[in-house]
Amino acid sequence: MIHQQTFTVATRGRGTIEITPEVERIVAEFGARVGLCNVFIRHTSASLIVCENADPSVRQDLERFAARLAPDGDPMFRHTLEGPDDMPAHVRSILTQTAITIPVAGGALALGTWQGVFVWEHRTHPHRRSVVVTVMGEA
Amino acid sequence: MIHQQTFTVATRGRGTIEITPEVERIVAEFGARVGLCNVFIRHTSASLIVCENADPSVRQDLERFAARLAPDGDPMFRHTLEGPDDMPAHVRSILTQTAITIPVAGGALALGTWQGVFVWEHRTHPHRRSVVVTVMGEA
Amino acid sequence: MIHQQTFTVATRGRGTIEITPEVERIVAEFGARVGLCNVFIRHTSASLIVCENADPSVRQDLERFAARLAPDGDPMFRHTLEGPDDMPAHVRSILTQTAITIPVAGGALALGTWQGVFVWEHRTHPHRRSVVVTVMGEA
Repeated sequence: MIHQQTFTVATRGRGTIEITPEVERIVAEFGARVGLCNVFIRHTSASLIVCENADPSVRQDLERFAARLAPDGDPMFRHTLEGPDDMPAHVRSILTQTAITIPVAGGALALGTWQGVFVWEHRTHPHRRSVVVTVMGEA
Repeated sequence: MIHQQTFTVATRGRGTIEITPEVERIVAEFGARVGLCNVFIRHTSASLIVCENADPSVRQDLERFAARLAPDGDPMFRHTLEGPDDMPAHVRSILTQTAITIPVAGGALALGTWQGVFVWEHRTHPHRRSVVVTVMGEA
Repeated sequence: MIHQQTFTVATRGRGTIEITPEVERIVAEFGARVGLCNVFIRHTSASLIVCENADPSVRQDLERFAARLAPDGDPMFRHTLEGPDDMPAHVRSILTQTAITIPVAGGALALGTWQGVFVWEHRTHPHRRSVVVTVMGEA
């Protein structure tokens, strides 16, 4: 049993957007009780993370950390065609996830109490990001 | 054919603990000859890595590298509710893996000669960490 | 339906090599229309990334970024048995991917327009790297 569905996330520029509810809905619609759920983002300047979803200050601190690690406009970067945030966005994507595969148990994502799935937009301007969810499992 | 099992790792504070034997045992019990084995940690301040498992100095160096990259008590971090190691633990988790999917071949994990699967505890105090192993495959 | 195939990549020392065509060929041969494709590298000093595949300057900038983040010969590292690039290679592997699971849709990898799958060799000397591709899906 396989189920696949694609949805779009409209980002407001750099920052994280939780997509746990959308992914949970696709898993619930499919109806498998046990299996695997793969989440994949079809971009190289936005990525996925599983992160603490209770206190927003965690994601704000992650943003500050990433900005210090790969600063916009760093003179080391030559790939600057789309602006000072172009190459830092690729670096942030490489250091986080393009794909995350999460177990399904009891018909739902087997996430821990404090885990959420987030799209992390790394570009400063808003974008539309395509996310593919593939669930494989049995009833 | 799907098999899923959860086990707990008691960590002794910051550091790595190899779980390859536990994961191998679950794969062997299941009996699939070819397929995929997903390992998932249900936490946001401990993570998974596939790492060199011969020389412990590799993981000691990783620890030093992570401590330099995201130092405990860094004044940049505002999410310090659980102490100076709280936010560094989230950063280290984001930069490593919450989920790793490993091929199964010949009824065992198709790891390279020097590869082991490790839980990396990022908090300074001991914790109990829940790991879900899901195997999908055929005989 | 499961299909598994291993191939070898001969690297020319540090740098990225695109393997999207090899992975696509294995997916196409298998003939599944929808499912998941897992790519796994059986090493701890070379890794996988999904990266922008249009402009080579992106990967050159990634190389510079990684060299600054984990410099060869860093006196912090004690695991130097195989040379000054030994431990930096492990660090780069830990911060990127050993395994990536990509959705299959319409009988092909559901990659975005600018996404390619790359082996990233982190050692300065050439190596032979083993990559396992496992496809699970239905017709």
